[in-house]
Amino acid sequence: MAKKSWILTDVDADIYQEQISIGPDQAGGKARGYSIVKRTLRGGLREGVDVVEVDNGRLRFVVIPTRGMGLWRASCGDLRLGWQSPVKGPVHPAFVSQWGSNGLGWLNGFDELLVRCGLESNGAPEYWPNGAVRYPLHGQIANTPANKVEVTVDGDSGEICITGVVDETRLFGQKLRLTSTIRTQVGSTAVTVSDEVTNLSAEPGELELLYHINFGVPLLSSGAKVAVPIKKMAPRDGVAASDIPTWDVYEPETPGKPEACYFFDLLPDASGNTQATLQSAAGDKGVSVKFNKKQLPCFTIWKNRHSAVDGYVTGLEPATNYPNGKSFEKAKGRVITLAPGESRRFEVTIEAHPDAASLVAAQKAVATIQGGTTPEICSQPDPNWAA
Amino acid sequence: MAKKSWILTDVDADIYQEQISIGPDQAGGKARGYSIVKRTLRGGLREGVDVVEVDNGRLRFVVIPTRGMGLWRASCGDLRLGWQSPVKGPVHPAFVSQWGSNGLGWLNGFDELLVRCGLESNGAPEYWPNGAVRYPLHGQIANTPANKVEVTVDGDSGEICITGVVDETRLFGQKLRLTSTIRTQVGSTAVTVSDEVTNLSAEPGELELLYHINFGVPLLSSGAKVAVPIKKMAPRDGVAASDIPTWDVYEPETPGKPEACYFFDLLPDASGNTQATLQSAAGDKGVSVKFNKKQLPCFTIWKNRHSAVDGYVTGLEPATNYPNGKSFEKAKGRVITLAPGESRRFEVTIEAHPDAASLVAAQKAVATIQGGTTPEICSQPDPNWAA
Amino acid sequence: MAKKSWILTDVDADIYQEQISIGPDQAGGKARGYSIVKRTLRGGLREGVDVVEVDNGRLRFVVIPTRGMGLWRASCGDLRLGWQSPVKGPVHPAFVSQWGSNGLGWLNGFDELLVRCGLESNGAPEYWPNGAVRYPLHGQIANTPANKVEVTVDGDSGEICITGVVDETRLFGQKLRLTSTIRTQVGSTAVTVSDEVTNLSAEPGELELLYHINFGVPLLSSGAKVAVPIKKMAPRDGVAASDIPTWDVYEPETPGKPEACYFFDLLPDASGNTQATLQSAAGDKGVSVKFNKKQLPCFTIWKNRHSAVDGYVTGLEPATNYPNGKSFEKAKGRVITLAPGESRRFEVTIEAHPDAASLVAAQKAVATIQGGTTPEICSQPDPNWAA
Repeated sequence: MAKKSWILTDVDADIYQEQISIGPDQAGGKARGYSIVKRTLRGGLREGVDVVEVDNGRLRFVVIPTRGMGLWRASCGDLRLGWQSPVKGPVHPAFVSQWGSNGLGWLNGFDELLVRCGLESNGAPEYWPNGAVRYPLHGQIANTPANKVEVTVDGDSGEICITGVVDETRLFGQKLRLTSTIRTQVGSTAVTVSDEVTNLSAEPGELELLYHINFGVPLLSSGAKVAVPIKKMAPRDGVAASDIPTWDVYEPETPGKPEACYFFDLLPDASGNTQATLQSAAGDKGVSVKFNKKQLPCFTIWKNRHSAVDGYVTGLEPATNYPNGKSFEKAKGRVITLAPGESRRFEVTIEAHPDAASLVAAQKAVATIQGGTTPEICSQPDPNWAA
Repeated sequence: MAKKSWILTDVDADIYQEQISIGPDQAGGKARGYSIVKRTLRGGLREGVDVVEVDNGRLRFVVIPTRGMGLWRASCGDLRLGWQSPVKGPVHPAFVSQWGSNGLGWLNGFDELLVRCGLESNGAPEYWPNGAVRYPLHGQIANTPANKVEVTVDGDSGEICITGVVDETRLFGQKLRLTSTIRTQVGSTAVTVSDEVTNLSAEPGELELLYHINFGVPLLSSGAKVAVPIKKMAPRDGVAASDIPTWDVYEPETPGKPEACYFFDLLPDASGNTQATLQSAAGDKGVSVKFNKKQLPCFTIWKNRHSAVDGYVTGLEPATNYPNGKSFEKAKGRVITLAPGESRRFEVTIEAHPDAASLVAAQKAVATIQGGTTPEICSQPDPNWAA
Repeated sequence: MAKKSWILTDVDADIYQEQISIGPDQAGGKARGYSIVKRTLRGGLREGVDVVEVDNGRLRFVVIPTRGMGLWRASCGDLRLGWQSPVKGPVHPAFVSQWGSNGLGWLNGFDELLVRCGLESNGAPEYWPNGAVRYPLHGQIANTPANKVEVTVDGDSGEICITGVVDETRLFGQKLRLTSTIRTQVGSTAVTVSDEVTNLSAEPGELELLYHINFGVPLLSSGAKVAVPIKKMAPRDGVAASDIPTWDVYEPETPGKPEACYFFDLLPDASGNTQATLQSAAGDKGVSVKFNKKQLPCFTIWKNRHSAVDGYVTGLEPATNYPNGKSFEKAKGRVITLAPGESRRFEVTIEAHPDAASLVAAQKAVATIQGGTTPEICSQPDPNWAA
């Protein structure tokens, strides 16, 4: 039994599917109990947003081709992954003025479980000497629609792939292509995002890529904890520095409390793999973010301790760089230069832990990578890491 | 006979009605001769704009959920309310770059009878020290689509309500919710806009709200007049000051003549109610804007004396503040602070006067509120009112 | 047999055709072998873009009402006209932030064969003293949708016309109307764009208009040449100056090589007509751009010698002005002032040369206009032409 594919969008081939439902009847093979639905959301800020809703029988998640192949939300049984943003997304890019709000307009569209920040730049906005925005907050890829979207199902193995192509290109500008394959297995609690970024240009290109992976209530609450294998950690600023003793524990919702960011050099296993594991306050549920440090050497934990209505959320953020302004990162050697035609691959897995057993196994994996190494915890920002 | 309701849009419930027509057959009851139609406009700058067209049998008006529940146009018999903007609206927000044109981009979408200016700010644009726009002209609510829209009809009493929810929210920004109910009665010549603005945040929020209610040809022409009960009036600037002797009379269309704005502290009746009444040059038709001074203490009359093709129009503008830059208004104590969860209510009624009798009654009401009080007419701008 | 017309869009009349196909069966008459199809593109950056695809039996071209009545692409047999932009267009204006990228956002939507630059301004972006963008690159008309579109076919003569109305208007701003008629003849190798720009305002208006007509591979390649009848030519800058000996020959794709622009005062024939003719490297194919110097006195050749993936392209650009910042052009007297109600007409013809005979005839026409006049070739930029 071969794999079967469905092209949902291909602007070059003039193909666009308004709506499609794919399941065992369409794919054939012996896998059962899954579905893939492509449809277009209507109304409010989500008017016209294409989504691909995947249910592998255990994990459900929503891919957003209109927002650069991000992941809107996921759930595994009654464990919801993602967060409640103050904005009712997913937001169509037509409603996001990234260059407005002094370069902070990206926030108007921010409500995803997984949103890529990049490709030309990510991190804090940066300005030209005349005051104009040079790099808007977190770059443009999340507000760029895919020009090709394909679903592939292997009806025997039960592998489901959603592949999308998103071009961040323009004359006299960057020519970077993101080809993202979002993969899951029927009955699995995990989804893997495999990205390839290619410099289409005949000239060198620059790349920054950060996976802003966000969790809020109900998984997050006072007493939730995060575990990562640490080589070195440093706070981003004075706010984070003053909270170092409790950096890995989530405080209760605290209106007005400023965000805290911690920057990490994580420990990997022998293959370079590493992970961050978040556990609920009750310790009965959690989620892991897994990736490879050779691909994504930098890691940030973002703790936003506001009230739930204002965005009570943590970001676990594997990346090629720390989310400072691009020029700082470039000076520190953390901006990737891609030769003409060169590609880089990045892979991130989000794995739900719907029960204590699964969570404990993940925490054990973190502990195993940590092994006997003593973490270096800096009490102050590292000038090499934070602008 | 109970009220009946139809949900047109509810993004949380994944509901969206492409098109719907509601009348006596759908609503039941004894009221007759009215209709409510929801449809989506196509082509040009209005492509994709949702409208709700209400005809109560006497007054017809168009609600624009896509533009923050504004009112596009109204008419009562052959009396047209609204104005002919140079732009062919209603304009989809995707075509409006509010942060462009040095903060004046809002004008690219401006063609409504009633457009709300707010919620975080309204008035003149304001800039950061680096020159970037801090507050764009008249704020963002009019370019934000409603995420929930509902029609309610009481088939017996003949009350028709269109309710919409518009969120002006984002992470690290304002979290204000506008819930607007636009209400009319079968056979009535009036429409009432009842708004509630709620601070969803657990932190204090700031609010400015101005109802920019605009009338042009044919109601407006040389010799048309406006009447308001005045406690105190001051011109905004030298242009307005020089025209004070004729402030309440409309000049003929005069290409190139600069706009004039007059700021008012109106007199209310014992309940706080007050109104502005505009009469046609012939004195046979008019319109009133009614509101409560406790809710909307500031009032502005905007006279734009350009040629009709350039926008010959007057604005009667009840508001929480004068339309200066927000920082000036804040310094003067005219920016509302909403506690966490706090709501404020505002109500504005537009009443058509299709005949002299109705107009005369309205003018009598203005005169009654004025009573024996001598208006204080300032010959120069009041430094407490104008930046 | 009279002409027949079909209204595709008319916002004033509330008319919009989702899809329509017009051919001999619909138009009647004896002309055969042509078709006109209106449809809406879907997916990626082109989601929602209306196009009118015309096939006159010999020449095929695509009109884009959503992008100001530009021409996307054309082809004549196996001769393709247009270019391969790094962006997969045609791009919906909702994805173009013209005021972003420090005024260069227009580039995010740039991929047409013919795109108008104007109407208020074209050329390089210009800034206010506070650093904000005053005039974004190449103006707004190409990102403004037509509010009226009509097809007219004369079934006997075989004349096909697509007429569109695009308003660049706003309160307190310009009020210019473009009425464009794009005309071809069944069996012809040419398409003519006849534009009328009208100042709707009762006040004077300013106009700059440039036809950015772009050709890339396969017509363009190393050794391709361009011919124009020259009165005077000057390079725009030092880059162009240093390449003057080979200004009329196209270099091979050269990654990183900066663009070169040449400004011309062309020679016309006795009627004012003139033309530019591009020939392929093999000299067997080509294209001409024909216009009248009384309407379009300025001409620019833009050579972008990047790799094909980065945009290997030349622009042949008849215009009312040179594409410098507007203030410079105004100081030099090259900005048109339109009196209230005044109109100006402009006409540009693109003629494919699918064979050597047709190409040679065109080149002969250029040579005839040149006659015995010696071109004045400036070795350095002319301070009157280049800012």
